[in-house]
Amino acid sequence: NKNVAAEVIGAVDYIICDIDGVLRLNNVLIPGTSETIKKLRNKGKRIVFATNNTATRNEILVQLNELGFDSNIYEIMTSSFAAALYFKKLNLPGKTYIMGENSIFEEFKNLGVATFGAGWKKPADLQDIIDSVVDEEVNAVIIGYDFYANYAKFVTACTYAKKCNNLWATNCDKTFAPPKTGSFPVVVPGTGAFVSFVETATELKAKFLGKPTTFFFECLKLLEPNLDQNRTLMIGDSLKTDIAFGNQNSFRYTCLVETGTDCCDDILNTNDPILVPSHYIRRLSDLNKYL
Amino acid sequence: NKNVAAEVIGAVDYIICDIDGVLRLNNVLIPGTSETIKKLRNKGKRIVFATNNTATRNEILVQLNELGFDSNIYEIMTSSFAAALYFKKLNLPGKTYIMGENSIFEEFKNLGVATFGAGWKKPADLQDIIDSVVDEEVNAVIIGYDFYANYAKFVTACTYAKKCNNLWATNCDKTFAPPKTGSFPVVVPGTGAFVSFVETATELKAKFLGKPTTFFFECLKLLEPNLDQNRTLMIGDSLKTDIAFGNQNSFRYTCLVETGTDCCDDILNTNDPILVPSHYIRRLSDLNKYL
Repeated sequence: NKNVAAEVIGAVDYIICDIDGVLRLNNVLIPGTSETIKKLRNKGKRIVFATNNTATRNEILVQLNELGFDSNIYEIMTSSFAAALYFKKLNLPGKTYIMGENSIFEEFKNLGVATFGAGWKKPADLQDIIDSVVDEEVNAVIIGYDFYANYAKFVTACTYAKKCNNLWATNCDKTFAPPKTGSFPVVVPGTGAFVSFVETATELKAKFLGKPTTFFFECLKLLEPNLDQNRTLMIGDSLKTDIAFGNQNSFRYTCLVETGTDCCDDILNTNDPILVPSHYIRRLSDLNKYL
Repeated sequence: NKNVAAEVIGAVDYIICDIDGVLRLNNVLIPGTSETIKKLRNKGKRIVFATNNTATRNEILVQLNELGFDSNIYEIMTSSFAAALYFKKLNLPGKTYIMGENSIFEEFKNLGVATFGAGWKKPADLQDIIDSVVDEEVNAVIIGYDFYANYAKFVTACTYAKKCNNLWATNCDKTFAPPKTGSFPVVVPGTGAFVSFVETATELKAKFLGKPTTFFFECLKLLEPNLDQNRTLMIGDSLKTDIAFGNQNSFRYTCLVETGTDCCDDILNTNDPILVPSHYIRRLSDLNKYL
């Protein structure tokens, strides 16, 4: 209600806001959300859009502005930019093999971190693949969502991960929110499924970088050094990703919106306190009348 | 030694023999093994070559005969033929989606079990994939090794597996034996890695059909109805696959050869009695002098 909304908004300087399922759904604006963001900005709140999406920040920026969010690049944190920031900080010798889309390569390149793996030629056969995996200088492997995944990439990722015993992933999301289409739901596998493939073949455990990890929080802090968890609100549609991120990193408030993956019933069905938000609202734009 | 060899060989009518790592390595004959098989046949032993390889029986037959094994189709059991036999027996209504190589489709077709999934066109984008997953009549999904795996196949496999809650795999091998090449070992992922991808995205557990499962033993029994475990010897190079298969299915004898995946030290390093063979020899052809 109005008092609670006023209290929470009054008590925070930072609002970390997920994108998919909160601001938009399948790239379509969820009505009223751009107005909410505008009103929050007008109240002096610092907004950061934080997504496990592996698109580049520039791509996300263009998409958000097309939907009327009037954003800028400094408001956007993605799991691939976080990975690039984190590897920049690690400053490993050698280079990192990336299995993922071009956006991940681009973020690493923008920060000057040496990687390879993009644009590989199609192999003729297994021996062709085996003969190509020879680089002694690999220091780590990063797995991200890869629409163009193929067996050659999997062999390469597994071999280098095993060789350097250093396996990372941009995020752990097992699927995307199922598109509403046809007579049964389509399962759209996410980065977590690619990671399972590599973990099984290598018997390694990947370190994840996106929400809900503390790595991702450290990356947020690199972007926003003054962020004070005691004066921060996390808004998201996924308990395991967004709410867990807020709780695990000691944000004062976490708020679930029901326009994406999870709903109020999912809160009632969990026994894990890390997944329970401090507040929930039907949709982000429900805040508009209190702002 | 000679007495032990004579005792074991004398006590069995059936010898179930793995192929890769026992008879050949990377498609090259392990010297002397064709002579061993010939000598065992001359002693009246019934040989069955049992492999988790998903090639067709005909393909395996041609390969074995090129290496001098003078085999016939009735001696060969593969995980894809086993899957086809098993599904023939299940006699499910509708049809089965297969993610795997053409050999798996062929074995199912040979037995008249309805499947689909082969030779799909390359999708333009994710929406194209989503729009293609519409078949109401799917009864099961089978995952096998797939050199030509791509994201469209994974989405399809995951969606249908979730829809019909019926996920199978030809075998659970996580990798192939690493090829000896270059300065570090190449990891060649097997069916088990593909299965992990689908299990993670669907939150289902696959039922496996190859060695060491009892399903595979039931398939062997379909091929060899008179097989008596009390008079059977299993020979293989993998503790988890071959030796476990023999032990779990109460074969009187199991024998490890050290020409493939595992060696004597691996026996000493396990605490699981199901993985411990009753006997072991350096190489299959060490038997030649006792036959």
